[in-house]
Amino acid sequence: MKKIMNDPKNIVSEMLEGLSILNKDLLYHPEFEVVSRVKTGKKKVGIVSGGGSGHEPAHAGYVGLGLLDAAVAGNVFASPDPMRILKGIKEADNGAGVLLVIKNYSGDIMNFDMAKDLAELEGIKVESVVVKDDVAVEDSEYSDGRRGIAGTIFVHKVAGAMAERGASLDEVKRVAQKAIKNIRSMGVSMSSCTLPAASKENFTLEVGKMEIGMGIHGEKGIVKDLLKTSKDIATILLEKIMNDLDYYDSEIALMINGLGATPLMELYVLNNDVRKILLSKNIVVKNNMVGNFMTALDMTGCSITLFKLDTELEDLLNEKCKSLALNI
Amino acid sequence: MKKIMNDPKNIVSEMLEGLSILNKDLLYHPEFEVVSRVKTGKKKVGIVSGGGSGHEPAHAGYVGLGLLDAAVAGNVFASPDPMRILKGIKEADNGAGVLLVIKNYSGDIMNFDMAKDLAELEGIKVESVVVKDDVAVEDSEYSDGRRGIAGTIFVHKVAGAMAERGASLDEVKRVAQKAIKNIRSMGVSMSSCTLPAASKENFTLEVGKMEIGMGIHGEKGIVKDLLKTSKDIATILLEKIMNDLDYYDSEIALMINGLGATPLMELYVLNNDVRKILLSKNIVVKNNMVGNFMTALDMTGCSITLFKLDTELEDLLNEKCKSLALNI
Repeated sequence: MKKIMNDPKNIVSEMLEGLSILNKDLLYHPEFEVVSRVKTGKKKVGIVSGGGSGHEPAHAGYVGLGLLDAAVAGNVFASPDPMRILKGIKEADNGAGVLLVIKNYSGDIMNFDMAKDLAELEGIKVESVVVKDDVAVEDSEYSDGRRGIAGTIFVHKVAGAMAERGASLDEVKRVAQKAIKNIRSMGVSMSSCTLPAASKENFTLEVGKMEIGMGIHGEKGIVKDLLKTSKDIATILLEKIMNDLDYYDSEIALMINGLGATPLMELYVLNNDVRKILLSKNIVVKNNMVGNFMTALDMTGCSITLFKLDTELEDLLNEKCKSLALNI
Repeated sequence: MKKIMNDPKNIVSEMLEGLSILNKDLLYHPEFEVVSRVKTGKKKVGIVSGGGSGHEPAHAGYVGLGLLDAAVAGNVFASPDPMRILKGIKEADNGAGVLLVIKNYSGDIMNFDMAKDLAELEGIKVESVVVKDDVAVEDSEYSDGRRGIAGTIFVHKVAGAMAERGASLDEVKRVAQKAIKNIRSMGVSMSSCTLPAASKENFTLEVGKMEIGMGIHGEKGIVKDLLKTSKDIATILLEKIMNDLDYYDSEIALMINGLGATPLMELYVLNNDVRKILLSKNIVVKNNMVGNFMTALDMTGCSITLFKLDTELEDLLNEKCKSLALNI
C-alpha cells in the first residue's frame, strides 16, 4: 500500500484541515470532523450531508454557495456518530430549518435519524431525504434497499439551489425528493481499494477482470466479468439503468464519475460512448459532468448517473454554485 | 492493465470528442486533435498550449474564457506534429497575434517552433514561452534543461487573463515570462504508469518504494527511496524547490497536483503538511489549488508548485476564467 499520509489514525482530520484551508468561506470544526460555511446572516434552509470518509471530494468539497451548508465526516468508510451530525445541523441552521441528504447505508440512516431527534429537542426543524440511486443490487452488505452513490451530488445541487433561493424547508425537501425519484446510477470496478489503516487491499479483483455493480465501499456487485471495452461498459451500465426508469425521449443530466484512481482520459472516452448511445435513444443531454465526484479511496472504475429533468430541476441545476468540487 | 477504453489507437480522438461535447463553447477538430474556443469575434491575443496526451485535463481542459484559446494534442506522451499545432494557432488567432506556451520537451520545442514559422509565413504574429518549472533534474531523457510540469497551468492562467484584458502580444508574453521566472515545481511518484497500447507498466517501482523527482512521462528522478510520510514528502520537495528560488517572506500561489491515480484525500493531507511548513517559513499562501491538474496517465504520486506573486500576477490569477478544469 502506497499512500501519501502520516498516521492513518489522523487521516480524516488532516484531510479536512488541508481541505478547509483552501477556502476562506469554510470553517473546520476539528472535534466533530465537520466542515461548514461561514455564516452569512442570510435566513435560508440549511443543507447537511455526510457519511464515511474515503469518498472525496464528497462531502466537504461540496460545502459552499448553492450547495451544502455543512458536511459531516465519519472515519474512513464508517458513519459519523450522531453528535458529529448534530454539530453539522447546528452549523447549518440559519433559522429556516435544515434538510439532511442521507445516502442509504444502515449506519448513516440510524445516526442521521438520531441526530435529527436531538436537533429537534433543541428546537431546530429538521427534515431528511434518502438517496438510493444505485440500481445494481436491491439490498447490500451495508444497506436495506438500494445504495446511495454519485447521484447524491445532483441532490446536493438541486436542494442547495432551492435553499439559496430562500424557499421553505418543505419546498426544498420537495425538489430533493423529486430529484431522487428521477436519478439512477450504476458503476463498475476494475480494482479493490485499500483502507489507510490496512496493509493490503480490501479484497482482490483478478487480472483481466472487472466487477459490475460494485459498491463504493467495495460491496458486492452483480457479477465478475472479463474486462470489457468502454463501449461495452457503457452499454451494460446504461441498459440496467434504463430498464429501471424510462429515460427514452427525455431530457437528462449525465454524470460520468471516477472512483478515485481512474484517469480523466478514460472517463472522457467513456463519456463519448455513453453520449453516442443516449443520442441513438433520443435522450437529450442538457447537462454533462465528467470527473471524480464520489470516489472510493483508490479504487479504479467509474459510475454513470442519469437524472431526468423537467424545467424546474434543470433551472436548479444551472443556478450558480461555488465550492471546491463544483463551480457553476 | 485495466483501462476504460476501446481501441488504443483511437484513445486520443475518442477522449477529445468526449471532452469537447461537455461544453458548447468548445470546438473539436478531429483531423488535427485540436480543441479550440468557439470564436467570439473579440480581437485579443490567442493562447495556445499542448503536447503529448496522457496529462489530462491538460491541455484541452483549460480551453476557455481567460485561459487557452486552443489546445493541441499529440498521441500519448508524443509531441503533436507541426501541422496540428499550426491548426491550433489558426484557431486561436483573433487578429492580435498568438502566444505559444510550451513545456520544455525536445519534441515539443521542435514542433512548436516549426509551427510558429509556418504560421508566420501565413501572416500570423506568433511568440512563444517555454516552461521549465521542474527543479528535480537539470537535463532529462526528453529535455535539454529542466522539464515543464504542473506549473504550466499557472502560466496558462496568467497569460490567459492578460490576453482577456485585451493586452498586446508583447504584454501577454511579458507576464507569461515573469510567471515562469517565479514558478518552481517538483514531484514524487509511487508507481509507474501504463501506456494504453502497452500490456504492462512502463517500468516497475518496487513495493514500499517511491521515486523522488520522477517526470510526468516516467522519466528518471533523483533517487528511489523508501516510501515516506506526507510530512516527509512535503519537507523533501519544498526543500529542493526553496533551495532553487528564494520564497522566504514572500506571497505565493500553491498548487498540490495529483498525477492521475492518487485520491484527493491524500492530496488534501499533503496540502495540510505543506501549508504548515510554509507558515513556519513566513511564506504567505494567497492562492491554493489542490487537484489533478497535470497528470501522467494512471501514475500515483503528486507534485508541489510554488509561484511567487506580485500584485500584477496575483490580480491575473484571481481574474475570472471558465473551462472544464478551472473555474474562478
